Amino acid sequence: MQLAATIAERIRGVTGIPRTALHEPALNGNELAYVTECIQTGWVSSVGSFVDRFERDLADYVGARYAVVVSNGTSGLQVALMLAGVTAGDEVLVPTLSFVATANAVSHCGAHPHFVDSSYATLGLDVDALDAYLRETARVSDGVCVNRRTGRRIAAVVPMHTFGHPVDMPALVELAQRYAIEIVEDAAESLGSYIADRHTGGFGRCAMLSFNGNKVVTTGGGGAIITDDTELAKRAKHLTTTAKLPHAWEYSHDEVAFNYRMPNLNAALGCAQLERLDAFLAAKRELANRYQQAFADLPQVELFTERAGTRANYWLQTLLLKPGHVDERDAVLRATNDAGQMTRPVWKLLHTLPMYAHCEAMPTPVAADLARRIINIPSGPQLVAGAL
Amino acid sequence: MQLAATIAERIRGVTGIPRTALHEPALNGNELAYVTECIQTGWVSSVGSFVDRFERDLADYVGARYAVVVSNGTSGLQVALMLAGVTAGDEVLVPTLSFVATANAVSHCGAHPHFVDSSYATLGLDVDALDAYLRETARVSDGVCVNRRTGRRIAAVVPMHTFGHPVDMPALVELAQRYAIEIVEDAAESLGSYIADRHTGGFGRCAMLSFNGNKVVTTGGGGAIITDDTELAKRAKHLTTTAKLPHAWEYSHDEVAFNYRMPNLNAALGCAQLERLDAFLAAKRELANRYQQAFADLPQVELFTERAGTRANYWLQTLLLKPGHVDERDAVLRATNDAGQMTRPVWKLLHTLPMYAHCEAMPTPVAADLARRIINIPSGPQLVAGAL
Repeated sequence: MQLAATIAERIRGVTGIPRTALHEPALNGNELAYVTECIQTGWVSSVGSFVDRFERDLADYVGARYAVVVSNGTSGLQVALMLAGVTAGDEVLVPTLSFVATANAVSHCGAHPHFVDSSYATLGLDVDALDAYLRETARVSDGVCVNRRTGRRIAAVVPMHTFGHPVDMPALVELAQRYAIEIVEDAAESLGSYIADRHTGGFGRCAMLSFNGNKVVTTGGGGAIITDDTELAKRAKHLTTTAKLPHAWEYSHDEVAFNYRMPNLNAALGCAQLERLDAFLAAKRELANRYQQAFADLPQVELFTERAGTRANYWLQTLLLKPGHVDERDAVLRATNDAGQMTRPVWKLLHTLPMYAHCEAMPTPVAADLARRIINIPSGPQLVAGAL
Repeated sequence: MQLAATIAERIRGVTGIPRTALHEPALNGNELAYVTECIQTGWVSSVGSFVDRFERDLADYVGARYAVVVSNGTSGLQVALMLAGVTAGDEVLVPTLSFVATANAVSHCGAHPHFVDSSYATLGLDVDALDAYLRETARVSDGVCVNRRTGRRIAAVVPMHTFGHPVDMPALVELAQRYAIEIVEDAAESLGSYIADRHTGGFGRCAMLSFNGNKVVTTGGGGAIITDDTELAKRAKHLTTTAKLPHAWEYSHDEVAFNYRMPNLNAALGCAQLERLDAFLAAKRELANRYQQAFADLPQVELFTERAGTRANYWLQTLLLKPGHVDERDAVLRATNDAGQMTRPVWKLLHTLPMYAHCEAMPTPVAADLARRIINIPSGPQLVAGAL
């Protein structure tokens, strides 16, 4: 049997159902009850008790002092970068292997993405390779990191925890300190992922979470900024709610700001989803075990599993084609999608997209190799029957 | 009796209830049924049948060829301005008497708001005064309007239909053509408002609608871009959905874009709300009649009513203090709010806010006068008992 057909069959064996999307939300907890409460009380919009509760519950879950919910992850990352001091004309280091939002958020600040290679160990940015690259490319003077080639300030680095697998943050923290670069974590994919007992998103100045429909926890659309810094949290709230000054009736605002609020209706969904997160994570871990067993006798592929010392949320289950089988990727994608088992390759490398082709980039051989080898396979927690 | 106390009493007489917000949503139609459908089918996120339906229903209602729903009005206006060709460094004419979002959206394009005075007849920008001002301030060469003082291009004008009362659009269309300026309507407040039989938002290149919680129709938070231009509509969808190129599985994007999607959950609310819009409008019109009667014998105030040839949605009911009674505004605000009848003054003039104080502005004596005299009073459609 062809490899593609075999893989489709094995996936079908694990999911047990004839048709599945990549990651469907599981909404059979208190979602309907909470949303009903919003509609019956009239509190559907940008203030409300579920907004406050979701922010508290999120902060508690990730172990941050503050969470500020926003309309989506891209907007959240834009504001997080602004809070970390990124301004127009700066450069921001981002992995080329990421969803386009990571780079777009940098552009929305008027800054320039500067692309970084990936690590085989984490799928995220390669801290050692970045270190070697910065030694050649950057200099630090008066506490400012400057790109020698462009003369621009390198203001921040955005580690993105790919599919829920944590970047090597302790090493990145050391590197960023040495180069006077701020860390803003793109934790869009890593709610429920840890390094030792520290939740991802807790290593930099601030971080962004996403609750898009395909994420571990969804609010329909939405995101959050998390931080331990009181002043930053206040500014995050201020900047995402039109910078309105508190007053009983006066409408006065003190800076150019955004309306990036998350409506109470969406926060209600988030509260219900968060109640179930631990169950989702357990199911996704079990799903990873089942896939690992299902592919154990296929030498052409391997399931990407969590690195020692970390705990992944297994947001998207990730199959890697072994070297020598890269040419079969599209056949696998076709066979699995034709068989009703939705799969997809990883994103096109950001530095190859037309709007980012002119940006600074280090050599990215590992990202290029991974981009040919990654296939994401069905990952919803409800695929583990009886787990929810 | 003091004027303030009398006004509070009269408002209480019309609303008939001891405590009311300025504009509460009425969610007793199909809102719960449609939202329940989203949760039970799992379609809560950025694609779904309610998104498609809400876009069709909106376009039908306003008589536009296309509606593209987005996460909120500010983001919708930013993209509408981009679609109309506004780029960084341009100037955009906006009324100084407006919510801060009108100017923020201009700033988010990297452009500069240039503030315009208001009209006593419409509460919106004064077309005649703008005409006289541009004669002094602007010149048109090679089809480009330039501010003689700053040398910058004046790319667009943003009429905002204050509290649902339409700007004199036929006159503005003539003026804008003469000066080669694009019109982008801020119709955030004017869903259901017409000039003759043409809906507001249909006079320029494109327009923005808002569905914030306090609007005539709410989606919790959200907005839309409406236009008759097929190419513009396509670009609006592309720019607000990460500029992803269609492909069965590939993630490729061709420009820096946004994630400004409206989730299906919110669109579901919008569909149910839109079914009730005509009933809301009838109730709000009746409320205006009742207020007009209630204040008929008070020579110190007048209710602002629709101009001949227009049909207002009466989004926010507007009381005007007559000249000579301006000093009593804060007493009225205090008395009414203390009496549980929420009222508020109009926004602080935008050109007086710190971040816009350095911007270009024509003399704005009418806006300054109106800002001292406007008091918005309770306006929700459910205040007309039995109407819904």
